[in-house]
Amino acid sequence: MSISEYANLIPESIKDDIAAWIKEDIPSFDYGGYVVGETPEVAILYGKSPGVLAGVPFFNEVFSQLDCSVEWFLKEGDYFEPIKEIAKVQGKACNILRGERIALNIIARVIAGTRKTTPGFRLVEKYGMLVGGADTHRMNLSSMVMLKDNHIWSQGSIKKAIERARNVGGFSLKIDVECRTEAEADEAIQAGADVIMLDNFKGENLRTCAKSLKQKWTNKKFLLESSGGITDENITEFFCPDIDILSLGCLSQGVKHVDFSLKIRKES
Amino acid sequence: MSISEYANLIPESIKDDIAAWIKEDIPSFDYGGYVVGETPEVAILYGKSPGVLAGVPFFNEVFSQLDCSVEWFLKEGDYFEPIKEIAKVQGKACNILRGERIALNIIARVIAGTRKTTPGFRLVEKYGMLVGGADTHRMNLSSMVMLKDNHIWSQGSIKKAIERARNVGGFSLKIDVECRTEAEADEAIQAGADVIMLDNFKGENLRTCAKSLKQKWTNKKFLLESSGGITDENITEFFCPDIDILSLGCLSQGVKHVDFSLKIRKES
Amino acid sequence: MSISEYANLIPESIKDDIAAWIKEDIPSFDYGGYVVGETPEVAILYGKSPGVLAGVPFFNEVFSQLDCSVEWFLKEGDYFEPIKEIAKVQGKACNILRGERIALNIIARVIAGTRKTTPGFRLVEKYGMLVGGADTHRMNLSSMVMLKDNHIWSQGSIKKAIERARNVGGFSLKIDVECRTEAEADEAIQAGADVIMLDNFKGENLRTCAKSLKQKWTNKKFLLESSGGITDENITEFFCPDIDILSLGCLSQGVKHVDFSLKIRKES
Amino acid sequence: MSISEYANLIPESIKDDIAAWIKEDIPSFDYGGYVVGETPEVAILYGKSPGVLAGVPFFNEVFSQLDCSVEWFLKEGDYFEPIKEIAKVQGKACNILRGERIALNIIARVIAGTRKTTPGFRLVEKYGMLVGGADTHRMNLSSMVMLKDNHIWSQGSIKKAIERARNVGGFSLKIDVECRTEAEADEAIQAGADVIMLDNFKGENLRTCAKSLKQKWTNKKFLLESSGGITDENITEFFCPDIDILSLGCLSQGVKHVDFSLKIRKES
Amino acid sequence: MSISEYANLIPESIKDDIAAWIKEDIPSFDYGGYVVGETPEVAILYGKSPGVLAGVPFFNEVFSQLDCSVEWFLKEGDYFEPIKEIAKVQGKACNILRGERIALNIIARVIAGTRKTTPGFRLVEKYGMLVGGADTHRMNLSSMVMLKDNHIWSQGSIKKAIERARNVGGFSLKIDVECRTEAEADEAIQAGADVIMLDNFKGENLRTCAKSLKQKWTNKKFLLESSGGITDENITEFFCPDIDILSLGCLSQGVKHVDFSLKIRKES
Amino acid sequence: MSISEYANLIPESIKDDIAAWIKEDIPSFDYGGYVVGETPEVAILYGKSPGVLAGVPFFNEVFSQLDCSVEWFLKEGDYFEPIKEIAKVQGKACNILRGERIALNIIARVIAGTRKTTPGFRLVEKYGMLVGGADTHRMNLSSMVMLKDNHIWSQGSIKKAIERARNVGGFSLKIDVECRTEAEADEAIQAGADVIMLDNFKGENLRTCAKSLKQKWTNKKFLLESSGGITDENITEFFCPDIDILSLGCLSQGVKHVDFSLKIRKES
Repeated sequence: MSISEYANLIPESIKDDIAAWIKEDIPSFDYGGYVVGETPEVAILYGKSPGVLAGVPFFNEVFSQLDCSVEWFLKEGDYFEPIKEIAKVQGKACNILRGERIALNIIARVIAGTRKTTPGFRLVEKYGMLVGGADTHRMNLSSMVMLKDNHIWSQGSIKKAIERARNVGGFSLKIDVECRTEAEADEAIQAGADVIMLDNFKGENLRTCAKSLKQKWTNKKFLLESSGGITDENITEFFCPDIDILSLGCLSQGVKHVDFSLKIRKES
Repeated sequence: MSISEYANLIPESIKDDIAAWIKEDIPSFDYGGYVVGETPEVAILYGKSPGVLAGVPFFNEVFSQLDCSVEWFLKEGDYFEPIKEIAKVQGKACNILRGERIALNIIARVIAGTRKTTPGFRLVEKYGMLVGGADTHRMNLSSMVMLKDNHIWSQGSIKKAIERARNVGGFSLKIDVECRTEAEADEAIQAGADVIMLDNFKGENLRTCAKSLKQKWTNKKFLLESSGGITDENITEFFCPDIDILSLGCLSQGVKHVDFSLKIRKES
Repeated sequence: MSISEYANLIPESIKDDIAAWIKEDIPSFDYGGYVVGETPEVAILYGKSPGVLAGVPFFNEVFSQLDCSVEWFLKEGDYFEPIKEIAKVQGKACNILRGERIALNIIARVIAGTRKTTPGFRLVEKYGMLVGGADTHRMNLSSMVMLKDNHIWSQGSIKKAIERARNVGGFSLKIDVECRTEAEADEAIQAGADVIMLDNFKGENLRTCAKSLKQKWTNKKFLLESSGGITDENITEFFCPDIDILSLGCLSQGVKHVDFSLKIRKES
Repeated sequence: MSISEYANLIPESIKDDIAAWIKEDIPSFDYGGYVVGETPEVAILYGKSPGVLAGVPFFNEVFSQLDCSVEWFLKEGDYFEPIKEIAKVQGKACNILRGERIALNIIARVIAGTRKTTPGFRLVEKYGMLVGGADTHRMNLSSMVMLKDNHIWSQGSIKKAIERARNVGGFSLKIDVECRTEAEADEAIQAGADVIMLDNFKGENLRTCAKSLKQKWTNKKFLLESSGGITDENITEFFCPDIDILSLGCLSQGVKHVDFSLKIRKES
Repeated sequence: MSISEYANLIPESIKDDIAAWIKEDIPSFDYGGYVVGETPEVAILYGKSPGVLAGVPFFNEVFSQLDCSVEWFLKEGDYFEPIKEIAKVQGKACNILRGERIALNIIARVIAGTRKTTPGFRLVEKYGMLVGGADTHRMNLSSMVMLKDNHIWSQGSIKKAIERARNVGGFSLKIDVECRTEAEADEAIQAGADVIMLDNFKGENLRTCAKSLKQKWTNKKFLLESSGGITDENITEFFCPDIDILSLGCLSQGVKHVDFSLKIRKES
Repeated sequence: MSISEYANLIPESIKDDIAAWIKEDIPSFDYGGYVVGETPEVAILYGKSPGVLAGVPFFNEVFSQLDCSVEWFLKEGDYFEPIKEIAKVQGKACNILRGERIALNIIARVIAGTRKTTPGFRLVEKYGMLVGGADTHRMNLSSMVMLKDNHIWSQGSIKKAIERARNVGGFSLKIDVECRTEAEADEAIQAGADVIMLDNFKGENLRTCAKSLKQKWTNKKFLLESSGGITDENITEFFCPDIDILSLGCLSQGVKHVDFSLKIRKES
């Protein structure tokens, strides 16, 4: 069985990304590689702070490109306490050390959300959200259309912006509209929006508006999304039966890193 | 005059990196771009949390590739309080919105250290350290050679590892050796190491060892580096006249993001 | 005003694609370019068979990379009869001839549909569908999820396949399920599919099933798509008020090319 | 023995092309791949319309990159009637489905001619011509030099254009000159052209001119090519013992696609 | 007028090659660029040893990518004596110094021949041959077919090898056959070879064989090439009216470099 | 054991370089590959002139990408006399011939020095210097900082230029300063330069200055480098106990190529 069932989401092109990341770390010669040489070694991946394992397919690909093999003692999504042996890497000493920093950098960062991701690293961060149990929200500008204030102003009305988006997006793309009042939400639902994002609505105000919309538009199918100012501390005040989605920017920014290390085992 | 004197460090190849980051965000069509069209607009970059501006050349390059111009009200390295107007972006509506997310992701993340950087994003993070006043430490495996436990074990002694590294690194590369005892440091200095990293030495122990080494080896030139367990809270106990460098992993990991937004100005 | 309002859909990365296509045509030297030299010339684009103009932004980009300018006499989507002057290209003789074959190959091929496109050329072909007034259907495997027989067998039931797809696709992606019987369609709608593709249903059978589904599931929002065996000749028998989408493979395959030529004008 | 003796023509760089085509189809996640998972499956390639098999090495490479194996029941160039089992693909379910569309798109399109090919896809289309028994004509601007009206005008005479081309092409490249009169052909032959393309000559006119040229210039070696207006219907009127080459634009444009499908076999 | 009439041979893709060469020289930061900053400067290109100027379009492209302008005092192919001012480069100090080494490395190396070129640098070296007045011989394996001993053995006879090559090369490619005896040359001419390379024939032997072949095969058109062991010293003994081409490996290997320098002018 | 202990210096990205070099040689079809077909063959690498073997890992990678195996009879750095059998290559005939020219071009050119290398080929040439026993000097502008006249003028003094370089290079990079007088060398040493390059000092003058500097600055650690005008003939006059490094431009330019050939063995 596979260590990570999410691995089948990852495109083949990740191989090129990882090759580029290895090249970033060795632009010309690998002097340390020459020093340690090619003796076969075994290294252990340790979790040094508590955390959740996420990023197995990326970690594997790094070492596969370096002709090393990896054996896992936990599987993707498992929680661990320090000091825990998580995996075993086998290969030439120079190759284990080449992959060490890149592989650790990946699994220590794997958690994110929305489009607020590190440039060039989105696939890995979105993957981490899935492993952690979160919805990835849209992947990029070519997936779900989001109409925000800037888009709406440019067309003069929510209705016109939605029509224009449907013209090119066709039936296969969803349209998500950011609304600041219930009247805007009415206009968006009427015009066929798939998701209504209630922006900066809070507490009672949010609950009342959501309930009203769901009762008014029973003949339309739409999802209600609440966004803006949601944090770990105040999240319960956004819970409400009529809200389908809570969007948290904080998932993707300023996240704590998990501390890992990879140590060559001194066989005695 | 240039907004950022550090801009001259950045290689031309950053253009390709930024083109790849834009492609990551628009793998096929830009539906939103079609919706807003190409009316000329002006957008303002706001700082929404206190912070230091870093990343001007990257921000400029993103918008340059999208045929937008940027005018700055602050310069690289300036501190700002919210809510502050930082820059003005001018161009077609569709192009401003294409660049918005990528440009913000870059300047919100620009701060890091050591080789523990996000894969594919190291140049930007190292740049941020310089703007913030920190030393970038080595860039990659092809720059300064670092000999750690793994390298030393493989050669049997610090002396042999240093000789081997000098053999290929030649006179133009520095060699940094991680030492766990004063005896190891003696061996490394004797063998010609350029930097001695005293790993996990603390307080009195650190100060005594550093002083002893500097007095013992007046005929050798070397730098002393202290590393391991240094945090914002305990950093003063590592201050010592004989220590030349303090290395902090925490500069590069789990950093707080600065909150920015880019809003198209509704001219009235 | 822009010659093509669809141009704002095109990502910057098309520049790299077009550079690669030019390189395909000049892998080493351009001997003909040496022969004609760099005298400034004017060339006229003629439509030699009746057709619809589609591909303006790609045509422009080819000549822009070759330092030529293009002036259009028609706009994207216009119909033309032969022999019609469509555009004027100005630049060095060697550059006009370098771009000629590639630019003509693009606009002569611009019409397509579904994922059955020429590898490496999908963006151009999908773009042509929009200009021609067709829905582009999904762009790739990373956009709308389509569950076909192969996917469903693998999970044992339509319900399980939909749950699994929703798990990773989240709220922002649509799910389209290929159904061969009304019972399968019922299961898919129940499980939350966004689009039901009635595969190989025809005539009365199609109309009855579509009507029944729309009446049965008034509390669910879904689109009905008819697919399989639709051609130019029999398309009217698929028209039906309850069918939202007709999918035609023939849009993308074996399409007639439009005949264009680009001739340097002999100024007298 | 090899399934296709033409396979040895294909450069290693086709691997990068095919990787790029797979990436075009999976720019971020492969949601369907997650749904079906990695159970080992067997799929059969069926020919659903009559056709000739061409494209075996490309089909193989697609599935090789996806860790699937392919076993062929026909060989390159074989004719088949529907419904015919042509090949068997074995691998993980998610990988078979990733490769399906791309591999089918390739073999369904493999037939073309001249430089009027789909940008980025020329190598595949030229390959198809060889398998189908046609001459590929020149590959690109860096192979045989073709001098057309535009080139000749720029130099003032056919003689000057040929001299200029020979100056850089040297002895290893052929020069093909498009001539509209017998006098032009005389000038080209005299100046050392390797191929004379009689453009838009037809019927008796073509035969007379060809015979005259061959008799007049026995001391020169050149090939006569007839081009312009040749179709399936009128091709016999271009047959003539003195004509060495017939060029048909129609080989490359508007070709009918062959209908293939790839179905996972439900083992019972 | 253009400084180099050969410039029109160069494909647009040279831009990517030169970008890659600049990246090779600045894999991360350009520390020297920071030191000198962006003051506008003028630098002079000096020829320090006698030589012929070749490589103008490459030199220009390097500095164009660095936003510098170049003004030439000599033109491509001109001979110069030291110490000669050849060109003037204007731009930011940091950019002039970035381009200096790469631009000098190119023009100092520009001279070569046959396929024995430096990997990745062939286009530049072949270009140098043209400027120097030599024939470039074939560019790569996809241009003129060369049949050597290895190819012939594999098919059993020269005749079979030529037939096989013609089958895929078609009428537009030349075939060059390496022959070690007059009988082999007869077989090759009979089978339709375009070029006969007489390998390791010397002096009287070469002249007799060449004359005999030209007299025997008046009804065939072919070129005779002499190759093997030709040097600067003995080249006159290979001169002979029946030999069309002399091939010298020495043009491409071990060539003397021309000594150039680029100095920023200290304006007083 | 490994044939070349230096192989562990080579980054994985060399694979992409070599793939690009193969593509340079086969931009479209490999006609010769079709002619010889895929019979298994054995080819022998012969040294035809005396030389030192350097480039084993590159040679191996070329043939590995072509599915051929290589067996070596000598190891990296071994000297050989002609005619010597050096290695045996086994694989399909078409693949051996594809790799032949590229692999030979690499090992015949492997020797160089300083940054005066062939663009795109520096890694191979620097590697050759190590095998040949020379120091590679700095790799690129991102490694050791070199301050020359141009850099110093721009800052007004050596001291300011060094301070500026240290500001961004930090403790991990060395700074090398080109000095034309002893006073300049004094200023550079005082300001913390790591290497002092005495430019165009010769004979007695060089020895006196070097001795004086080493005696004056016992409390500073620095290396003395002599550069400018050193050749094979006059090198002994630069030998001096106080000079640590001799830099020879001639190592990298106009080097004699070693003559190799690769011949398919005719098994009898």
